[in-house]
Amino acid sequence: MMATLFRNARITTPIGGDAPLAGSDQGRVATYEKGALLCENGLIAAIGDEKDILIKAEEMDVDMEVDCEGTCMIPGFVDPHTHICFAKRRENEFSMRLAGTPYLEILKAGGGILSSVRSVHEATEDELFETTLDNVLSALNFGTTTLEIKSGYGLTTESELKMLSVIGRIARETPLDIAPTFMGAHAVPTEYKGNPDKFVDIMVEEMLPAVKEQGIAKYCDVFCEEGVFTVDQSRRILEKARDLGFLLRIHADEVHDTGGAGLAAELGTVSAEHLLAANEKNLRSMAVNGVIADVLPATAYSLKKPYAPVRKMIDLGVPVALATDCNPGSCFTESIPFVFGLGVMNMDMTVEEALVATTLNPAWSLGLQDKVGSLEVGKQADFLLLDGESPAILAYHAGVSPVVEVYKKGVQVA
Amino acid sequence: MMATLFRNARITTPIGGDAPLAGSDQGRVATYEKGALLCENGLIAAIGDEKDILIKAEEMDVDMEVDCEGTCMIPGFVDPHTHICFAKRRENEFSMRLAGTPYLEILKAGGGILSSVRSVHEATEDELFETTLDNVLSALNFGTTTLEIKSGYGLTTESELKMLSVIGRIARETPLDIAPTFMGAHAVPTEYKGNPDKFVDIMVEEMLPAVKEQGIAKYCDVFCEEGVFTVDQSRRILEKARDLGFLLRIHADEVHDTGGAGLAAELGTVSAEHLLAANEKNLRSMAVNGVIADVLPATAYSLKKPYAPVRKMIDLGVPVALATDCNPGSCFTESIPFVFGLGVMNMDMTVEEALVATTLNPAWSLGLQDKVGSLEVGKQADFLLLDGESPAILAYHAGVSPVVEVYKKGVQVA
Ligand SMILES: [Zn+2]
Ligand SMILES: [Zn+2]
Repeated sequence: MMATLFRNARITTPIGGDAPLAGSDQGRVATYEKGALLCENGLIAAIGDEKDILIKAEEMDVDMEVDCEGTCMIPGFVDPHTHICFAKRRENEFSMRLAGTPYLEILKAGGGILSSVRSVHEATEDELFETTLDNVLSALNFGTTTLEIKSGYGLTTESELKMLSVIGRIARETPLDIAPTFMGAHAVPTEYKGNPDKFVDIMVEEMLPAVKEQGIAKYCDVFCEEGVFTVDQSRRILEKARDLGFLLRIHADEVHDTGGAGLAAELGTVSAEHLLAANEKNLRSMAVNGVIADVLPATAYSLKKPYAPVRKMIDLGVPVALATDCNPGSCFTESIPFVFGLGVMNMDMTVEEALVATTLNPAWSLGLQDKVGSLEVGKQADFLLLDGESPAILAYHAGVSPVVEVYKKGVQVA
Repeated sequence: MMATLFRNARITTPIGGDAPLAGSDQGRVATYEKGALLCENGLIAAIGDEKDILIKAEEMDVDMEVDCEGTCMIPGFVDPHTHICFAKRRENEFSMRLAGTPYLEILKAGGGILSSVRSVHEATEDELFETTLDNVLSALNFGTTTLEIKSGYGLTTESELKMLSVIGRIARETPLDIAPTFMGAHAVPTEYKGNPDKFVDIMVEEMLPAVKEQGIAKYCDVFCEEGVFTVDQSRRILEKARDLGFLLRIHADEVHDTGGAGLAAELGTVSAEHLLAANEKNLRSMAVNGVIADVLPATAYSLKKPYAPVRKMIDLGVPVALATDCNPGSCFTESIPFVFGLGVMNMDMTVEEALVATTLNPAWSLGLQDKVGSLEVGKQADFLLLDGESPAILAYHAGVSPVVEVYKKGVQVA
């Protein structure tokens, strides 16, 4: 039995319940002005006001004591939506996009999502692992201790399995909890442009069963959007995935209101992603069915688009989570502090709502709410020490990460 | 003679002339795809295509060679507008502001600029130095190698001199080039609220001569705004300062169009700051008189305000510089990479324009254009190595600083 006492910290944590936090509960947090956390074998044995925890600590064998003077303690961040497994950055394409180059010309110049497919195809598994590891360790330095990672730059069974294999290796060789998502339906490959239903056939008949057989993905995600997959194609893929035992996610209504949010509610997916164009009726259905909105403000920032209507979502009772969407095309960032800042400054979330949206709600979105996402007894001691008085430092210190120490299961990892 | 060769880097640098870069020249840069820089005794002895520089290097005694493989080299950042010398953060006030607390209540609770005045007054010179040093070293890590710092949380002769003394110590004890600005006219102290002209009298008759006598400030700056100092009061202070030999700056038209930009043009100040509300006529006058616009996008971000009309400024021929405005109230950031990103993503500057606006134009704004701000022969070897292919990485890698190494006069300092 190894016990460590973290004392003398201002602690702020979401307070969980039997569902993701929504509506007026979106910002439900507790704060201990002079708090302490007792960690035993990587789990939280006690947390609260320091004077109460010191009494409990006396009954135990405390091996180590850490004075957190001058810092604020919050749960480790949970990032529920990333494409952080990729082989090559696309900096040059970004410059072309800024300069106003039409997307078709960028595609001709070898850019766009299919260029990421090409580079993943060309990379060895080791190469893909190394670039992904760099990105993931950067995320860890920014305080992300639990991370969803999607495949989807493979688009062939072999290449998708390669990505999921790399994601599995990231899970084994880093301290983070990793949630792997199969997203073969991320784009229609060039050879199926004229006949996307044929690609959906392959997804349903070959890819999904192959991924299932290897047991290397927990979720299945689909890009439901005009010019990518229709609502009907998305339904077909997601229903098959559900039958095979996958949990479901869906990229919905990012650019056009195609009804993706409605499909999310209909199928009871765990989450729906983006939602910039989702209509109110479908958002209401999401609220009723407990579908979490994974909102991606850094993507709006990077594409110079309007932000998702988060205040409306909260008013309608949709539980909101924030994510980086880290990817080499539309949004290259590993920083949840940056996303947190955008949530507060550009989407008018309160600091408490943004804290829940970057910790407990995304933990629900990954089915890990019993292990991570809040500092409560029995959960993993995954937490951050911030250079500030409160989580407000994440917005107040603009563009600067206040994360000074990162702990996973009670052990400092960054 | 100490010579160092930095080779194998993609170099991008503004190309200077006999005035700040404006209009279609705002983005005037040169790029060497495989470049090299030869540094001798802290100065740039040669810069250009590697093959040319290697020939020159053979004629010299090169002590050290640095392979910059995989990085992009740009000039060190010049931040021309900060209030980075302060004694205490105001995180709690930020939370109150976010929660919609009226400014008057924040003042009653001890917040606002006068709380910074109080904490500077209460701090010893050593304490003030320590907090300032922390902030300045953070800026250095983000790539700022030349930095303007204003007084203005003193508001008494003694307290202003204390701040300027601390700023002088920062200049001596850090590797940065520091430009010190006297800004006693930052706010009207409580005791002069009913009679601000009396405070202006003191400024003109006592403070400015005292600062002049000690020779510890190069610039004089005034906050010209409704409820702070009028155009006439600002003119009186700035004319006196000019007579004493100070160079001039002015906080102009941040909230209301009071004519501050016009006063800047009339007096030929080096720069005018903020300018969110400046009218077109006065912007044209600034262009004619070569007044540099120091634009502060992180302040707009932190106050949830619209951004300054930078495209219009560039169209009108006003040279644009970007600055952090680092201060504990309206904008707490030391990060030029963050400001650069806002310039490109939220104010539609090109990458090249933003590069000039964070290096060469602010060097002009600080009268240091012969020493810093671009990588040209004879200037100091102040440069950054970025984890990217080009300066576009500063916007592409959203919310993440790509600055991996910082060199000042050819020596690595971060
Ligand atoms: Zn996505
Ligand atoms: Zn200012």
